[in-house]
Amino acid sequence: MAEETVPSGEAFKQVIIVRRDLRLGRGKLAAQVAHASLTAYLEAARLKPEWAARWLESGQKKVVVSVANLEELLAIKLRVEEEGLPTALIEDAGLTQVEPGTITALAVGPAPEPLVDKMTRHLRLL
Amino acid sequence: MAEETVPSGEAFKQVIIVRRDLRLGRGKLAAQVAHASLTAYLEAARLKPEWAARWLESGQKKVVVSVANLEELLAIKLRVEEEGLPTALIEDAGLTQVEPGTITALAVGPAPEPLVDKMTRHLRLL
Repeated sequence: MAEETVPSGEAFKQVIIVRRDLRLGRGKLAAQVAHASLTAYLEAARLKPEWAARWLESGQKKVVVSVANLEELLAIKLRVEEEGLPTALIEDAGLTQVEPGTITALAVGPAPEPLVDKMTRHLRLL
Repeated sequence: MAEETVPSGEAFKQVIIVRRDLRLGRGKLAAQVAHASLTAYLEAARLKPEWAARWLESGQKKVVVSVANLEELLAIKLRVEEEGLPTALIEDAGLTQVEPGTITALAVGPAPEPLVDKMTRHLRLL
Protein backbone atom coordinates (compact mmCIF):
# COMPACT_ATOMS: atom_id res chain seq x y z
CA MET A 1 0.00 0.00 0.00
CA ALA A 2 2.37 2.66 -1.27
CA GLU A 3 0.01 5.53 -0.55
CA GLU A 4 0.33 4.86 3.18
CA THR A 5 4.10 4.91 3.23
CA VAL A 6 5.42 7.70 5.42
CA PRO A 7 9.00 8.83 6.12
CA SER A 8 10.63 6.61 8.73
CA GLY A 9 11.37 9.54 11.05
CA GLU A 10 7.82 10.81 11.08
CA ALA A 11 6.03 11.05 14.42
CA PHE A 12 2.49 9.80 15.03
CA LYS A 13 -0.05 11.13 17.45
CA GLN A 14 -3.62 10.83 18.67
CA VAL A 15 -5.61 13.72 20.10
CA ILE A 16 -8.75 13.09 22.12
CA ILE A 17 -11.18 15.99 22.38
CA VAL A 18 -13.76 16.21 25.17
CA ARG A 19 -16.65 18.58 25.91
CA ARG A 20 -16.07 20.97 28.79
CA ASP A 21 -19.78 21.75 29.06
CA LEU A 22 -20.69 18.26 30.29
CA ARG A 23 -18.56 18.67 33.43
CA LEU A 24 -17.95 14.93 33.68
CA GLY A 25 -16.36 13.46 36.79
CA ARG A 26 -12.73 12.34 36.56
CA GLY A 27 -13.43 8.61 36.27
CA LYS A 28 -16.26 9.03 33.81
CA LEU A 29 -14.20 11.40 31.69
CA ALA A 30 -11.23 9.00 31.66
CA ALA A 31 -13.46 6.11 30.56
CA GLN A 32 -14.88 8.18 27.67
CA VAL A 33 -11.38 9.17 26.57
CA ALA A 34 -10.25 5.54 26.68
CA HIS A 35 -13.28 4.47 24.67
CA ALA A 36 -12.54 7.11 22.01
CA SER A 37 -8.83 6.26 21.92
CA LEU A 38 -9.33 2.53 21.42
CA THR A 39 -12.13 2.95 18.87
CA ALA A 40 -10.10 5.38 16.74
CA TYR A 41 -7.08 3.07 16.98
CA LEU A 42 -9.19 0.20 15.60
CA GLU A 43 -10.46 2.48 12.82
CA ALA A 44 -6.89 3.43 11.93
CA ALA A 45 -5.80 -0.22 12.02
CA ARG A 46 -8.50 -0.92 9.41
CA LEU A 47 -8.02 2.15 7.17
CA LYS A 48 -4.38 3.12 7.73
CA PRO A 49 -2.62 0.06 9.16
CA GLU A 50 0.85 1.57 8.83
CA TRP A 51 -0.18 4.65 10.82
CA ALA A 52 -1.68 2.47 13.56
CA ALA A 53 1.36 0.20 13.77
CA ARG A 54 3.88 3.05 13.79
CA TRP A 55 1.96 4.89 16.50
CA LEU A 56 1.92 1.81 18.74
CA GLU A 57 5.63 1.14 18.16
CA SER A 58 6.53 4.71 19.03
CA GLY A 59 4.69 4.69 22.36
CA GLN A 60 1.08 5.70 21.63
CA LYS A 61 1.51 9.45 22.01
CA LYS A 62 -1.83 10.85 23.22
CA VAL A 63 -2.98 14.31 24.17
CA VAL A 64 -6.34 15.20 25.70
CA VAL A 65 -7.83 18.58 24.83
CA SER A 66 -11.24 20.21 25.17
CA VAL A 67 -13.93 22.16 23.34
CA ALA A 68 -16.69 24.34 24.74
CA ASN A 69 -19.64 22.31 23.44
CA LEU A 70 -21.11 19.78 21.01
CA GLU A 71 -21.24 22.17 18.04
CA GLU A 72 -17.52 22.80 18.25
CA LEU A 73 -16.82 19.06 18.52
CA LEU A 74 -18.89 18.23 15.44
CA ALA A 75 -17.32 21.05 13.40
CA ILE A 76 -13.87 19.60 14.10
CA LYS A 77 -15.06 16.12 13.17
CA LEU A 78 -16.19 17.36 9.74
CA ARG A 79 -12.88 19.08 9.02
CA VAL A 80 -10.81 16.12 10.22
CA GLU A 81 -12.74 13.64 8.10
CA GLU A 82 -12.31 15.86 5.04
CA GLU A 83 -8.57 15.46 5.62
CA GLY A 84 -8.95 11.66 5.64
CA LEU A 85 -7.85 11.11 9.25
CA PRO A 86 -9.33 8.23 11.26
CA THR A 87 -11.74 9.39 13.97
CA ALA A 88 -14.09 7.98 16.59
CA LEU A 89 -17.08 9.85 18.00
CA ILE A 90 -18.25 8.49 21.35
CA GLU A 91 -21.85 8.44 22.49
CA ASP A 92 -22.39 7.56 26.12
CA ALA A 93 -24.90 4.93 27.18
CA GLY A 94 -25.93 7.49 29.78
CA LEU A 95 -26.45 5.26 32.78
CA THR A 96 -24.80 7.85 35.01
CA GLN A 97 -24.01 11.58 34.86
CA VAL A 98 -25.41 12.31 31.36
CA GLU A 99 -28.54 11.64 29.26
CA PRO A 100 -28.49 8.43 27.12
CA GLY A 101 -26.96 9.12 23.71
CA THR A 102 -24.94 12.15 24.80
CA ILE A 103 -21.90 12.67 22.58
CA THR A 104 -18.95 13.06 24.92
CA ALA A 105 -15.67 12.78 23.00
CA LEU A 106 -13.94 12.63 19.63
CA ALA A 107 -10.60 10.95 18.99
CA VAL A 108 -8.48 12.05 16.01
CA GLY A 109 -5.79 9.67 14.82
CA PRO A 110 -3.40 7.94 15.25
CA ALA A 111 -2.07 9.83 12.25
CA PRO A 112 1.08 11.73 11.29
CA GLU A 113 1.65 14.44 13.90
CA PRO A 114 1.71 17.43 11.50
CA LEU A 115 -1.72 16.48 10.13
CA VAL A 116 -3.18 16.04 13.61
CA ASP A 117 -1.64 19.28 14.86
CA LYS A 118 -3.00 21.23 11.91
CA MET A 119 -6.55 20.28 12.91
CA THR A 120 -6.25 20.46 16.69
CA ARG A 121 -3.44 22.79 17.79
CA HIS A 122 -5.87 25.61 18.53
CA LEU A 123 -7.63 23.55 21.20
CA ARG A 124 -7.06 24.00 24.91
CA LEU A 125 -5.30 21.25 26.90
CA LEU A 126 -7.67 19.64 29.38
CA MET B 1 -9.12 -22.96 21.27
CA ALA B 2 -11.73 -24.71 23.34
CA GLU B 3 -10.32 -23.50 26.65
CA GLU B 4 -11.25 -19.95 25.74
CA THR B 5 -14.85 -20.66 24.94
CA VAL B 6 -17.21 -18.86 27.26
CA PRO B 7 -21.00 -18.99 27.56
CA SER B 8 -22.65 -16.77 24.95
CA GLY B 9 -24.53 -14.73 27.55
CA GLU B 10 -21.44 -13.91 29.56
CA ALA B 11 -20.52 -10.26 30.06
CA PHE B 12 -17.02 -8.88 29.58
CA LYS B 13 -15.40 -5.98 31.35
CA GLN B 14 -12.23 -4.01 31.77
CA VAL B 15 -11.25 -2.21 34.96
CA ILE B 16 -8.57 0.47 34.95
CA ILE B 17 -6.95 1.21 38.29
CA VAL B 18 -5.15 4.51 38.96
CA ARG B 19 -3.08 5.82 41.87
CA ARG B 20 -4.77 8.49 43.98
CA ASP B 21 -1.46 9.56 45.53
CA LEU B 22 -0.11 11.00 42.26
CA ARG B 23 -2.90 13.59 42.08
CA LEU B 24 -2.71 13.74 38.29
CA GLY B 25 -4.58 16.44 36.41
CA ARG B 26 -7.74 15.43 34.55
CA GLY B 27 -6.19 15.34 31.07
CA LYS B 28 -3.06 13.54 32.18
CA LEU B 29 -5.10 11.00 34.12
CA ALA B 30 -7.37 10.36 31.14
CA ALA B 31 -4.39 9.80 28.84
CA GLN B 32 -2.87 7.28 31.27
CA VAL B 33 -6.18 5.43 31.53
CA ALA B 34 -6.48 5.32 27.73
CA HIS B 35 -2.93 4.04 27.41
CA ALA B 36 -3.64 1.26 29.93
CA SER B 37 -6.95 0.37 28.31
CA LEU B 38 -5.56 0.03 24.79
CA THR B 39 -2.45 -1.86 25.89
CA ALA B 40 -4.44 -4.40 27.91
CA TYR B 41 -6.86 -4.81 25.00
CA LEU B 42 -3.93 -5.66 22.71
CA GLU B 43 -2.61 -8.11 25.31
CA ALA B 44 -6.03 -9.77 25.50
CA ALA B 45 -6.28 -9.89 21.70
CA ARG B 46 -3.00 -11.83 21.71
CA LEU B 47 -3.64 -14.15 24.66
CA LYS B 48 -7.44 -14.42 24.80
CA PRO B 49 -8.76 -13.37 21.39
CA GLU B 50 -12.31 -14.47 22.12
CA TRP B 51 -12.44 -12.34 25.28
CA ALA B 52 -11.12 -9.32 23.38
CA ALA B 53 -13.56 -9.74 20.50
CA ARG B 54 -16.58 -10.32 22.73
CA TRP B 55 -15.75 -7.27 24.85
CA LEU B 56 -15.53 -5.04 21.76
CA GLU B 57 -18.78 -6.41 20.34
CA SER B 58 -20.60 -5.80 23.59
CA GLY B 59 -19.58 -2.14 23.85
CA GLN B 60 -16.20 -2.08 25.63
CA LYS B 61 -17.51 -1.85 29.19
CA LYS B 62 -14.90 0.04 31.22
CA VAL B 63 -14.77 1.18 34.82
CA VAL B 64 -12.10 3.41 36.35
CA VAL B 65 -11.24 2.84 40.01
CA SER B 66 -8.44 3.91 42.31
CA VAL B 67 -5.91 2.69 44.87
CA ALA B 68 -4.05 4.63 47.54
CA ASN B 69 -0.52 4.03 46.26
CA LEU B 70 1.95 2.00 44.18
CA GLU B 71 2.19 -0.89 46.66
CA GLU B 72 -1.55 -1.50 46.47
CA LEU B 73 -1.44 -1.35 42.65
CA LEU B 74 1.38 -3.90 42.41
CA ALA B 75 -0.29 -6.26 44.89
CA ILE B 76 -3.41 -6.31 42.71
CA LYS B 77 -1.31 -6.91 39.61
CA LEU B 78 0.24 -10.02 41.19
CA ARG B 79 -3.14 -11.47 42.18
CA VAL B 80 -4.71 -10.73 38.80
CA GLU B 81 -1.88 -12.35 36.87
CA GLU B 82 -2.11 -15.45 39.06
CA GLU B 83 -5.71 -15.69 37.84
CA GLY B 84 -4.53 -15.56 34.21
CA LEU B 85 -6.23 -12.28 33.30
CA PRO B 86 -4.62 -9.94 30.73
CA THR B 87 -3.15 -6.80 32.28
CA ALA B 88 -1.18 -3.71 31.32
CA LEU B 89 0.95 -1.69 33.74
CA ILE B 90 1.64 1.84 32.55
CA GLU B 91 4.83 3.74 33.25
CA ASP B 92 4.78 7.41 32.37
CA ALA B 93 7.53 9.00 30.30
CA GLY B 94 7.39 11.74 32.94
CA LEU B 95 7.74 14.80 30.75
CA THR B 96 5.13 16.59 32.83
CA GLN B 97 3.56 16.25 36.29
CA VAL B 98 5.48 13.11 37.45
CA GLU B 99 9.05 11.76 37.55
CA PRO B 100 10.17 9.69 34.52
CA GLY B 101 9.31 6.02 34.98
CA THR B 102 6.48 6.62 37.44
CA ILE B 103 3.94 3.79 37.37
CA THR B 104 0.54 5.42 37.03
CA ALA B 105 -2.12 2.83 36.11
CA LEU B 106 -2.99 -0.83 35.72
CA ALA B 107 -5.67 -2.17 33.38
CA VAL B 108 -7.29 -5.55 34.11
CA GLY B 109 -9.07 -7.28 31.27
CA PRO B 110 -11.05 -7.34 29.03
CA ALA B 111 -12.08 -10.59 30.70
CA PRO B 112 -15.30 -12.24 31.90
CA GLU B 113 -16.98 -9.84 34.33
CA PRO B 114 -17.19 -12.23 37.31
CA LEU B 115 -13.43 -12.81 37.18
CA VAL B 116 -12.68 -9.10 36.94
CA ASP B 117 -15.13 -8.25 39.72
CA LYS B 118 -13.62 -10.86 42.03
CA MET B 119 -10.25 -9.09 41.85
CA THR B 120 -11.39 -5.46 41.81
CA ARG B 121 -14.81 -5.03 43.43
CA HIS B 122 -13.28 -3.82 46.69
CA LEU B 123 -11.74 -0.80 44.95
CA ARG B 124 -13.18 2.70 45.13
CA LEU B 125 -14.69 4.29 42.00
CA LEU B 126 -12.62 7.23 40.84
